[in-house]
Amino acid sequence: MKEEEAAAAHPTMNNNNNKKKIIIDTDPGIDDAMAIFVALGLPQVDIIGLTTIFGNVYTTLATRNALHLLEFAGRTDIPVAQGSHKSTKLRIADFVHGTDGLGNQNFPPPQGNPIQPSAAQFLVQQANLYPAQITLVALGPLTNIALAMQLDPEFPQKIGQIVLLGGAFAVNGNVNPAAEANTDAISSYTYSFIGARKRITYGKTEKESITVLFPDVIQKVIFSPSSPYAADLVFTSGADILALGVNVTHQVVLTDADREKLAQSDGRFAQYLCKVLDVYFSYHHDAYNTQGVYLHDPTTLLAAVYPSLITYTEGVVRVQTNGITRGMTMFYNTKKRFAEITGWSDKPVVKVAVTVDAPAVVELVMNRLMSS
Amino acid sequence: MKEEEAAAAHPTMNNNNNKKKIIIDTDPGIDDAMAIFVALGLPQVDIIGLTTIFGNVYTTLATRNALHLLEFAGRTDIPVAQGSHKSTKLRIADFVHGTDGLGNQNFPPPQGNPIQPSAAQFLVQQANLYPAQITLVALGPLTNIALAMQLDPEFPQKIGQIVLLGGAFAVNGNVNPAAEANTDAISSYTYSFIGARKRITYGKTEKESITVLFPDVIQKVIFSPSSPYAADLVFTSGADILALGVNVTHQVVLTDADREKLAQSDGRFAQYLCKVLDVYFSYHHDAYNTQGVYLHDPTTLLAAVYPSLITYTEGVVRVQTNGITRGMTMFYNTKKRFAEITGWSDKPVVKVAVTVDAPAVVELVMNRLMSS
Repeated sequence: MKEEEAAAAHPTMNNNNNKKKIIIDTDPGIDDAMAIFVALGLPQVDIIGLTTIFGNVYTTLATRNALHLLEFAGRTDIPVAQGSHKSTKLRIADFVHGTDGLGNQNFPPPQGNPIQPSAAQFLVQQANLYPAQITLVALGPLTNIALAMQLDPEFPQKIGQIVLLGGAFAVNGNVNPAAEANTDAISSYTYSFIGARKRITYGKTEKESITVLFPDVIQKVIFSPSSPYAADLVFTSGADILALGVNVTHQVVLTDADREKLAQSDGRFAQYLCKVLDVYFSYHHDAYNTQGVYLHDPTTLLAAVYPSLITYTEGVVRVQTNGITRGMTMFYNTKKRFAEITGWSDKPVVKVAVTVDAPAVVELVMNRLMSS
Repeated sequence: MKEEEAAAAHPTMNNNNNKKKIIIDTDPGIDDAMAIFVALGLPQVDIIGLTTIFGNVYTTLATRNALHLLEFAGRTDIPVAQGSHKSTKLRIADFVHGTDGLGNQNFPPPQGNPIQPSAAQFLVQQANLYPAQITLVALGPLTNIALAMQLDPEFPQKIGQIVLLGGAFAVNGNVNPAAEANTDAISSYTYSFIGARKRITYGKTEKESITVLFPDVIQKVIFSPSSPYAADLVFTSGADILALGVNVTHQVVLTDADREKLAQSDGRFAQYLCKVLDVYFSYHHDAYNTQGVYLHDPTTLLAAVYPSLITYTEGVVRVQTNGITRGMTMFYNTKKRFAEITGWSDKPVVKVAVTVDAPAVVELVMNRLMSS
C-alpha cells in the first residue's frame, strides 16, 4: 500500500487548519525514537511537548535522549518536561534498547535543557490551556499521568484523550507471563513500603479522584516506584482512554527487509535509526525468535492520529498491583453479571484495541522515516 | 451423533478388563450431580471413592449431598470421605445451585455416613494402594489435594493423573473478571491472617515440597480458607495435571431443548436432574443471558475418561493469591524468553485444555442420564 493510500484509508480526526495537539510522554528508547520521528513528520500533528519518564531507561537519560532526538530533528522549539524519577534500581530495558537507550551509539550530549515545570505540571498546564483538545500519547509507565491527576483531579476530563501503550490483554506480558512493561515498571524498593502502603486507601469521590490519607508517603510509595498503582489509577480515572496492549502491537513487525529499505534510503531519520536498530533486532531475535522488531510505540502514536488503524472494544480495566501477576491488566467486558460487587463494578470503561491494520502502520512508519 | 459413535470416536485409555480407577473430589452442586451420575453410568469406570470439599456449598452439605446421590443411585458401596472445612463465611454458590446445592428440592437426609479418614488421608491411602493408577477428577477448590500433598510429598508422583476443573485461561473468570470459582473460593477470613501469611515462605526442595515455617497456622491460613494457595500449590506440584478452565467448559451447553428431552425420558437420573435443574437454568439466564446451562463438571469428568474429547497445550500455570486478580490463573506457554527469573521459571508444566468436542460431550451426558 502506498503511503497516500494508507493515509487516505485512515483519515485523521482533524483537518490541516486545525492540527491535532499532541504531547508524547516517552522513555526513549528505540521505538520511542521512531514514534517521535514519525510524529514530527506528520503535517496534521502539532507536537506541543515531550514529557519524559523512566522505563526503557532512567528518567534522566530519557530526558537527555528526548532533547537529543529533537535537536537531531531540528525541532528545539518543542519543549521537554522532565518526569518522575525512580529513586532505586529500576528494571530498565538496556538489553532491549542498549545502555544509552539508543542502541549504544554514544551520541553527544544535547545542548538544550528541559523546561522548568515537571512533566506532571506541564501536563496540567497544557490541559488547562487547551481543555479537551490535547491527545496525550503515553509510551511509558503511567506515573506522570497519575501525578497530573493527583495535581488536578479534573485532569481526566480536561485532557482530550489518552492513547497509551500498556497492558497485555488475554495474552502473556513481555516482562513476565503476567505483566507488560509499562504496567509493571517496578523496583524492589516498593517492598520496603508494604507497611506504609497498607495504610493508604483509595477513597472514591464523585469526581473519581483519590483520597490520600498519607500524602507524605504516597509520592514515594504509590507513584514513583510502583507503576502498577499509577496504571490502575489512570485506567480507572474516567479519562477518555484508548489502550494498545502487546496483544495488538506484537502484530506490527518491522522486518529485516524493511530495515534494508531504510538503509537504502537517504532519509535522515531512516539513516539515524538504521544505526540504532541493531540492539533492538538482536533482542527480538533472542527473546522471540523473530526476524524483525515490534513497533510498539509508533503503532500507538499512529493510532492516536489515524483512529481507524485499529478497532477496539470497551470495558473496565484494572491493574494488579502486587503478587505474582503484579502489573497484569485484567479487562472486563461488562457482559457477565457477577453475583458480588467486584473491583471492576461501577468503574469507568476504556477503549482497548483489538485489531490493527499492521501493513498500513508499517507503510506509514517507513514512508515518514524515509521522507524526512 | 449417536452415543455409540461418540464413544467410538473417543476411545478410553482402558479396556473393560482394566477399568479406570477414578476418585471424584466434589462439592455437589448440580453439575457435580450430573458428573457423578454420568460416571456411574460408564462401564469402563470404577469409582473408588468420592471426596468432598466446600465450594458450591459448605463441606458438610457437600458430604450429605454426595451420600444422598450415591444412595439414590444405589451405589452405597462407594465410600465418601469428608474434606477440609471452611471455618467462616464462604462465598457459596446458593444462587447457582440452590441453598441445598441440589435445586432446593428438600431431599431427605442420607442414611449413610462418610468414612473415617479425611478426604486428604483417603487420597493418600488410595494413591499408595494403587500407585500411578488413579485418575483424580477434581471438580471443586483444590484444598483437599493440596492437603494430600502436604501429608505425602510423593503424592504428586503417586497419583496417576489429576484432571481438574479450574481456572480461566485468556478469558474472564466466573466469580469476578479475574477469577474462576475453584481457584478463588476465598473468604474474608483470610485477611485477618495477612500478618501470619507473610511469615510463611515457600521453600523449594528437590521434591518441590513446601517448607512450612509455622505449621500450626498453615492449615488455617493457607489451605483451609484460601483456595488460591491450594490451587497454586497443585498447579506447580509436578503432578500429571490436565486443567479445564471456563474458557473450555463455557463451550459446552445443555440447552432448553436438551432439558426437554431429559424430561421426556424415563431414565431415573434424567428424571432426578430435571427436578433440580430449575435454579441452575435460572442462574444462567440471569448471569449470562443464555438459554441453557454450562456443563463444567460433566465435561471435566468425561475429559478424564475420553482424553480425545479435548485438545490441550502445555505450559506453566501460577495462581495469583491476593489482590484484585486473586484466584487468576496465568498460563505461560514457555515460548518467550524473559530477561529475568519469573515466578514461572523452572516450574513444571501442566496440560491446559484448549478445545472441546462439545456436541460429543452433550451427547454422552444425555445418553448416560437417559439410559440409567
